[in-house]
Amino acid sequence: MLAVALIVILTVKCSLTEGALASNSSIDRKDRNREMSLQRLQALRALMSSQRPVLAAYIIPTADAHNSEYIDAADARREWISAFTGSAGTAVVTSSQALVWTDGRYYTQFEREVDLSAWTLMKQTLPDTPTLEKWLASNLKDGDVVGVDPQTMTRDEWTPIQTALKKISAQLVPISNNLVDDVRIELGDPAPKRSHNELAPLHVRYTGRTAGEKIAELRRKMAEKKASALVLTALDDIAYTLNLRGSDIEYNPVFFSYLIVMETNVVLYWGDGQLPPSVTDHLREEGVDSVEGKPYGDILEGLKEMARELSESGDGRHVIWLSNDANEAIHRAASGSDVLKRPIDLISEVSPVKLAKLVKNEIELQGFRNCHIKDGIAVVRFFRWLHDQIDSGEQITEVQASDKLLEFRRDEKDFMGPSFGTIAGSGANGAIIHYSPDREGQQTVIERDHMFLLDSGGQYRDGTTDITRTRHMSGNPTAEQKDAFTRVLKGQIMIGSALFPKGVKGNVLDSFARHALWEVGLDYGHGTGHGVGHYLNVHEGPSGVSWRPYPDDPGLNVGQILSNEPGFYKVGEYGIRHEDLIEIVAVDKGSDHPKAKNLRGDYDGRGVLGFSTLTLVPNQRECIDAEIMTDFEISYVNAYHRRVLDTLSPILKERGLLKDLEWLEGQCIPITRK
Amino acid sequence: MLAVALIVILTVKCSLTEGALASNSSIDRKDRNREMSLQRLQALRALMSSQRPVLAAYIIPTADAHNSEYIDAADARREWISAFTGSAGTAVVTSSQALVWTDGRYYTQFEREVDLSAWTLMKQTLPDTPTLEKWLASNLKDGDVVGVDPQTMTRDEWTPIQTALKKISAQLVPISNNLVDDVRIELGDPAPKRSHNELAPLHVRYTGRTAGEKIAELRRKMAEKKASALVLTALDDIAYTLNLRGSDIEYNPVFFSYLIVMETNVVLYWGDGQLPPSVTDHLREEGVDSVEGKPYGDILEGLKEMARELSESGDGRHVIWLSNDANEAIHRAASGSDVLKRPIDLISEVSPVKLAKLVKNEIELQGFRNCHIKDGIAVVRFFRWLHDQIDSGEQITEVQASDKLLEFRRDEKDFMGPSFGTIAGSGANGAIIHYSPDREGQQTVIERDHMFLLDSGGQYRDGTTDITRTRHMSGNPTAEQKDAFTRVLKGQIMIGSALFPKGVKGNVLDSFARHALWEVGLDYGHGTGHGVGHYLNVHEGPSGVSWRPYPDDPGLNVGQILSNEPGFYKVGEYGIRHEDLIEIVAVDKGSDHPKAKNLRGDYDGRGVLGFSTLTLVPNQRECIDAEIMTDFEISYVNAYHRRVLDTLSPILKERGLLKDLEWLEGQCIPITRK
Repeated sequence: MLAVALIVILTVKCSLTEGALASNSSIDRKDRNREMSLQRLQALRALMSSQRPVLAAYIIPTADAHNSEYIDAADARREWISAFTGSAGTAVVTSSQALVWTDGRYYTQFEREVDLSAWTLMKQTLPDTPTLEKWLASNLKDGDVVGVDPQTMTRDEWTPIQTALKKISAQLVPISNNLVDDVRIELGDPAPKRSHNELAPLHVRYTGRTAGEKIAELRRKMAEKKASALVLTALDDIAYTLNLRGSDIEYNPVFFSYLIVMETNVVLYWGDGQLPPSVTDHLREEGVDSVEGKPYGDILEGLKEMARELSESGDGRHVIWLSNDANEAIHRAASGSDVLKRPIDLISEVSPVKLAKLVKNEIELQGFRNCHIKDGIAVVRFFRWLHDQIDSGEQITEVQASDKLLEFRRDEKDFMGPSFGTIAGSGANGAIIHYSPDREGQQTVIERDHMFLLDSGGQYRDGTTDITRTRHMSGNPTAEQKDAFTRVLKGQIMIGSALFPKGVKGNVLDSFARHALWEVGLDYGHGTGHGVGHYLNVHEGPSGVSWRPYPDDPGLNVGQILSNEPGFYKVGEYGIRHEDLIEIVAVDKGSDHPKAKNLRGDYDGRGVLGFSTLTLVPNQRECIDAEIMTDFEISYVNAYHRRVLDTLSPILKERGLLKDLEWLEGQCIPITRK
Repeated sequence: MLAVALIVILTVKCSLTEGALASNSSIDRKDRNREMSLQRLQALRALMSSQRPVLAAYIIPTADAHNSEYIDAADARREWISAFTGSAGTAVVTSSQALVWTDGRYYTQFEREVDLSAWTLMKQTLPDTPTLEKWLASNLKDGDVVGVDPQTMTRDEWTPIQTALKKISAQLVPISNNLVDDVRIELGDPAPKRSHNELAPLHVRYTGRTAGEKIAELRRKMAEKKASALVLTALDDIAYTLNLRGSDIEYNPVFFSYLIVMETNVVLYWGDGQLPPSVTDHLREEGVDSVEGKPYGDILEGLKEMARELSESGDGRHVIWLSNDANEAIHRAASGSDVLKRPIDLISEVSPVKLAKLVKNEIELQGFRNCHIKDGIAVVRFFRWLHDQIDSGEQITEVQASDKLLEFRRDEKDFMGPSFGTIAGSGANGAIIHYSPDREGQQTVIERDHMFLLDSGGQYRDGTTDITRTRHMSGNPTAEQKDAFTRVLKGQIMIGSALFPKGVKGNVLDSFARHALWEVGLDYGHGTGHGVGHYLNVHEGPSGVSWRPYPDDPGLNVGQILSNEPGFYKVGEYGIRHEDLIEIVAVDKGSDHPKAKNLRGDYDGRGVLGFSTLTLVPNQRECIDAEIMTDFEISYVNAYHRRVLDTLSPILKERGLLKDLEWLEGQCIPITRK
């Protein structure tokens, strides 16, 4: 389920940003890890043998206790034990074997990073590879005990393993202290301390709804379900609910915490439990009076205590609602399964906060539109600068380009930092879906005859951006590059201009993005779109556009934000991706939408949805082959470029950025067929 | 699961054919049923009270013991008790309430057919309607017992109900004698006897593989899974495996039976267990030597006996493999759960026969291509006849048209009967997705200014056909009709001409069929494609083309057959549907496919798939608006019509059907823009 959950939430970028984390670890450290692999394994095996009962196998998932997509160094246990730095994978250690299940994105990386004399790669995307539970069932024997830290595994992952082990009369048991953490201490390399950085209130002029209003809405939903408490475990759910932002995980403005919402009070498990006045004042101003702080580390005890109190309250049966991606330890504690004869009933389903924050309110939408204007300015300035540099013979590396882009973004109001590690892939690097330039290795210079793929984004107080543009640095792509560039663009337009019934799942749109590529035998190996948080995680569930199912997608609706990012990658040569963020809008005959005037139905009352593009940066004209585009596609591109110019040029003018303006005007000249 | 399973397998037609069964029941019988509803309910409630323990609720699903899509009159228990004749729905009877859960296709029909003073309609497609298990959980109390005939419920349906009831300390118990059958006897209206009609061997020149080869392949798969026995329960799985056909269920050439495949012998539960020499001879000729006949009714005892024998064999643990759509009683009996202290392990997953018959062999494919030529001749002759009749002022009713079509099909070699009840909907009737002309009610005449939708198919020894054509009887559609007709056709072409990677699920194609309709706010409320059996069920799983997931779809591959049937329905006015059967083919640069020559990749080695259209009947030229078609679409239609003409004209000539030939030539004149 972890792998699936990750796959479901992620599109191309997550792997890329994870790749970035990997490359940031120094080569030295990798080497040391490799050498130390056996020592670490031996220490873990000794610890497994000393458990009572002895553990025949120990499972080390990638996840932190919050099922976060990006994890903190404090939680990088699977990486530490195996030296494998990929974003997805589950390790299993027995007395004689050590294995990691991971997917096709990571096979090469695994073999490069890991000591293959000690570790076995289980290629989970190959049909012949047994699943983890099948492997355990056929390699263990009656009575064997398998351990796992229940905080690192969701209940949905736990259950099938438990079932498979039961069949062979073995069992899966929760080990409350993490054995990898213990081994690290034993070997004198303790895990870094978890950060509990300062919390920053986000004003209602950015959020549009106070924490009090959000909690009142949650309480209404709890009342419908007769739930006595709602336990929030996903870090972005908590940040959203309280209108607070943190900086405990790189790129994601979240903070390590748990939040319990009850009928009359809320409990925030954070740091040592002392909430600073800035936080309590903010919450009071936003209508949340009774907020209790408790130490982050007390969550499991706190939940058990709550279960006991509810159970003994004498006012009938109680139900506790938690998210289906909460971990096994949280599920057990919340039901009081260890402390009560008759455990509390749980509702384990998609968190109501996930569904609430999926649909942006008008203030959030305005923020999204606004920060995309600022982001457009920064990216346009950057590309003008980059072309200038390269045209004048400067040697600019991918890392220098990334740094310069950050400089331009820093000029913009309310910019808070990148929303993920910048993917700047020049030439063949653009085709490596994992790629992120390594600051410490050899630097790649962006050559004049390269296609250059730049995927980057910013966190702004008023919203989050995520944009990819691909440019040929001399404006002279090969015919093949031009064809692929145009087909990717046709796919992006087929999504961007689509009309569809309200309530369909994002999956139904995915093939539109591939159609022009499929026609000539090309495709790309990642999803087409992901949800985006509002000054929150750049990948936000529970919806997305992919051939893979999103089981918790409640259906597309007005006010949701998605990315629209088809691509094409020619290994060893170049990569192309065009990514916009798009906002879902209602469309009728009177709407400002290129297909509005032809409407003659509203899908029998279901309602017509379409997209409005938020991103405001032109696509490179020289790479577009108008000959293979329809009239509609040509006018769509020209109208978009017109809008980019009309929106950005007054700002460039006002700020005296006349060279940038001139460059942008050249980029936005309409394209035509010969 | 039943509802889901049905929804997953069905597209528009099933509901329509079920509608047909409904309409074939006489009005008289409906009225009688309505009157007798209360009497029947009272008798059932008395029986529920006399059970030990007393039943607080009794569930009556629609399914037969084989989870068939079409059921025999002997199994129409939910219909008998409720008078509701729809193809999908589950009844629940308590001491004071009686309810039926069904979907949106049937709300109106339910209210027309059922005594609403006794029965409550639960509209299961509305978000506020509780599921059956939720309703039970909130309407029953601790200790209550709910009964169901376990032969009428698959394990996948059983489990969630059982889980929900456990939570309120109630239980779901299997009641082995069907209480509705008992009530029918008590009230002097016993269920009709189940047919066990003669079995007809199908020669290997039609099937391409002997029963012996098929069983050897199953045994290889069983060996991989270490399964001691494979239990087949789906009637078409059994007919396919043994190369036998029957006639126990209308339109489906199957026979009531169960088949158990073991390492060295097979056991066929059929009739009284006496297999006629024609069958044993056929099986011997096809390499199946040791086939044992047992009485159909002994299946549960037989499975228990097998479980006991395997358990006592002393040669280690055994596993029995059965299909995940096998019913709860079969699952229990096969595991020996009532008779063994330690039940046998089950593998409950998609049957290997479903996956085998999904991919047609070369002989079956040749048969499909061949029977579509014959079917094309029959349908072309029919439409020529119909236009002639109406042009010359004859009053032709929908029923007369259906009968005449059957006459034409009967002229074709190896024709065995219709593959479903013909849907002949003229004018507003074409827009009723359930529609099928009622032989006993008032007859609708096909008017000259009507759009006429004709969906029909044939069973031939060499294959199964399923075709829909929509024609305006005077060739003068309104501009709106012409636009809708053309958009449906554009959708059909977008599917028919699509290229896509091998192994993607059918779901990814669905939106292509809707794109041209979605652009103007139109859609259709059914799936786009279903699998088709080879001289077997016209709806065959486990794949299909729909926005709904097909969980057991193994991915599209060469040799699969699908329908391609987008539509548009304007309630009260007209319906349009274009349906072809299409065969999946591999495509490379050298293929005879309209997009072959542009190929410049094979999806990184995955392989390129496309479709070849089997159906050979032109679309009405006068209804096609070439102005809204692309050049590609126009040439696609013209090439198709050319192929229809080239294929059918020599046969028409040879058979001296020169008037039909002349008419066909007119239909196949290329379309052009003004």
